[in-house]
Amino acid sequence: MVKFASGITKESYVDIEGIVIVPDEVCKRATQQVDIEVRKIYCVGRSANVLPFSIEDASRSDAEIEKALEVGEQLVHVNQDTRLNHRVVDLRTQAKQAIFSVESEVLKLFRQFLWNEDFREINTPKLTTGTSEGGAAVFTLDYKKQPACLAQSPQLHKQMAVCGDFGRVFVTGPVFRAEDSYTHRHLCEFTGLDVEMRIKKDYSEVMDLVDRLFVEMFDKLNERCKQELEAINKQYPFKPLKYKPKRLTFEQGIKMLKDAGFEVDPLGDLNTEMERTLGKLVEEKYGTEFFILHRYPLAVRPFYTMPCSDNKAYSNAFDVFLRGEEIISGGQRVHSPELLESRAKECGINIKTISTYIDSFRYGAPRHGGFGAGLERVVMLFLNLDNIRMTPMFPRYPGRLTP
Amino acid sequence: MVKFASGITKESYVDIEGIVIVPDEVCKRATQQVDIEVRKIYCVGRSANVLPFSIEDASRSDAEIEKALEVGEQLVHVNQDTRLNHRVVDLRTQAKQAIFSVESEVLKLFRQFLWNEDFREINTPKLTTGTSEGGAAVFTLDYKKQPACLAQSPQLHKQMAVCGDFGRVFVTGPVFRAEDSYTHRHLCEFTGLDVEMRIKKDYSEVMDLVDRLFVEMFDKLNERCKQELEAINKQYPFKPLKYKPKRLTFEQGIKMLKDAGFEVDPLGDLNTEMERTLGKLVEEKYGTEFFILHRYPLAVRPFYTMPCSDNKAYSNAFDVFLRGEEIISGGQRVHSPELLESRAKECGINIKTISTYIDSFRYGAPRHGGFGAGLERVVMLFLNLDNIRMTPMFPRYPGRLTP
Repeated sequence: MVKFASGITKESYVDIEGIVIVPDEVCKRATQQVDIEVRKIYCVGRSANVLPFSIEDASRSDAEIEKALEVGEQLVHVNQDTRLNHRVVDLRTQAKQAIFSVESEVLKLFRQFLWNEDFREINTPKLTTGTSEGGAAVFTLDYKKQPACLAQSPQLHKQMAVCGDFGRVFVTGPVFRAEDSYTHRHLCEFTGLDVEMRIKKDYSEVMDLVDRLFVEMFDKLNERCKQELEAINKQYPFKPLKYKPKRLTFEQGIKMLKDAGFEVDPLGDLNTEMERTLGKLVEEKYGTEFFILHRYPLAVRPFYTMPCSDNKAYSNAFDVFLRGEEIISGGQRVHSPELLESRAKECGINIKTISTYIDSFRYGAPRHGGFGAGLERVVMLFLNLDNIRMTPMFPRYPGRLTP
Repeated sequence: MVKFASGITKESYVDIEGIVIVPDEVCKRATQQVDIEVRKIYCVGRSANVLPFSIEDASRSDAEIEKALEVGEQLVHVNQDTRLNHRVVDLRTQAKQAIFSVESEVLKLFRQFLWNEDFREINTPKLTTGTSEGGAAVFTLDYKKQPACLAQSPQLHKQMAVCGDFGRVFVTGPVFRAEDSYTHRHLCEFTGLDVEMRIKKDYSEVMDLVDRLFVEMFDKLNERCKQELEAINKQYPFKPLKYKPKRLTFEQGIKMLKDAGFEVDPLGDLNTEMERTLGKLVEEKYGTEFFILHRYPLAVRPFYTMPCSDNKAYSNAFDVFLRGEEIISGGQRVHSPELLESRAKECGINIKTISTYIDSFRYGAPRHGGFGAGLERVVMLFLNLDNIRMTPMFPRYPGRLTP
């Protein structure tokens, strides 16, 4: 039997039948106080003789590799493409197990919080006629001889649900972007965390919800995922997130950037560099890496964004930042069909493709707002991972459609 | 003010400012013991002068319409297409509010049960290279100059997760079928409820989970959704589901059908009529509308299905029936790459399109199994609604891509 056992390849699955015994002497390196005296071994799923990479190599941190190099030892570095090509092996490392446990927990906490606040979960179709987010490219397909798009967000449908008397709804599900984006933070398919709700007075109600939701989420992640966070930290070291909520207007943000020497268009959007810098400035001044920037210039927001009542150059919209990167976009929506139509035209959207959406507001619509976050980006930034391709279990970006 | 108020169209959204008072005399038909003395009315979202149909008309049951007809009164019947074309108005009826509350609750109960059983939620990509369910037609699209399909199920990826040491996983999300199906139970896009798990001994572990999960779900739906079920019953009357679990082998099922006079191929699939009849026979004999039929003929199951070890003509696979209709398919999967390859070839599948899937089993794979259900079908059958197009909030079937 020993010969048979020693012939079983690494990473094989085995069934073992045996008797639990208390040994006279416990092996010093053992983690258990008892032994199993093996009677039968059965190889359930035999692994190939050669693995694409060993679990040990795939579990190593960059620091370990560098440290070894300093003393002249060359350790194997498994790159991201190799890992993804053999994803089932890569997923067996402690850090990957932990990352996807954290991701699973984020989804759970998101839903539990919203259930407790009387939100109902809805499902919105991914097969649609039109574009919801002016900018981003869409995947197109033939739907029974009708041209169709894959939804870039559940935006339009979650708003329709609110118009249909669903006062508070959330949606979790895939979102598709056909962008040729090779950045560290874009994917062609990601998991949207979307919320839409009736508003009593103004959009600060939505921002309040964001603050409470994310603070609770981060609190509980730190509490419930201690072991997972340790395992991730070992391979991908990171500092715990500082997440005391802070709120700034866009104008205040612009001022901070100007004071720091940036040339900024007061009614333009922030680029990645400005966002990073603003994140650092806020951290220095307010001691937090989690803040909301609101009252964005109307010109840089989607057509369905409600303009500010006191200044049409601005909007009741916000972005939320984590470690200097955007994780959420949200705000109040236009609920008047006439205003919606004119705003869509101004934004260059073909009204025909969204006529059923606009018509949804013709039979009475409440003041409402909401937000959308990307699950993978939340996980990436909470853990301070350097690439979003690490957070979907099976990522999709230009050039990758498998496994 | 009275003039202004009476000019507000039906279904408009209003803000009212007023003072709560205790009236000297409570109006007999009032549901509250207090009044609001209105000081200000503000019309937030004015509805059009003419609604596509009234909430009253849309809330009527067929029985009411027929009864009125008997005394010569013609009441308006709002058909399904009109309802969907103006979905936001239709959603405001009590029955629709209730149907989607039940649906939201099914999702919640599904997840809560599985979390309690140590399942982790994962997300699987909808953009894929190949077909997972031989039979059903797929939507194809261009993915950055690569031919791609919309996933017909998360089957292959949830299995890969299990091979990647995620012992127990579940997925909820959209599933796409490009079938030209105009039946009462097919959709082009529906919400899959998918489970995959390591198996210790055999596939009965999966069936046990199904029984416990669905019994708990139905119990809690009856308990938590009393008001909703009443509201649905008023417009769409139904008898409560009888769901004491029952398990039969396919052979036993065939025998029951034969005894009832059916000509049945013992190694063929059941058609809709046979399924319905079997449902009735089981209900008569065992007093339940919820049962599992297992040990299906191998020939009628997908390529990844594990053949029975004692008889290769059968498989370790099952279907679950509710009120005589299939709601779940499940079973043990092949975990040997060699067997998987030969089974795929036998089923006429192009191995190239699923090579990354097959490769996932080359580095050690556990015995595993699972199942997939359709959320909309579960809700339809629990409520005994006559068409599945009533259970997605925004259904997609041939000819319908909006709203």
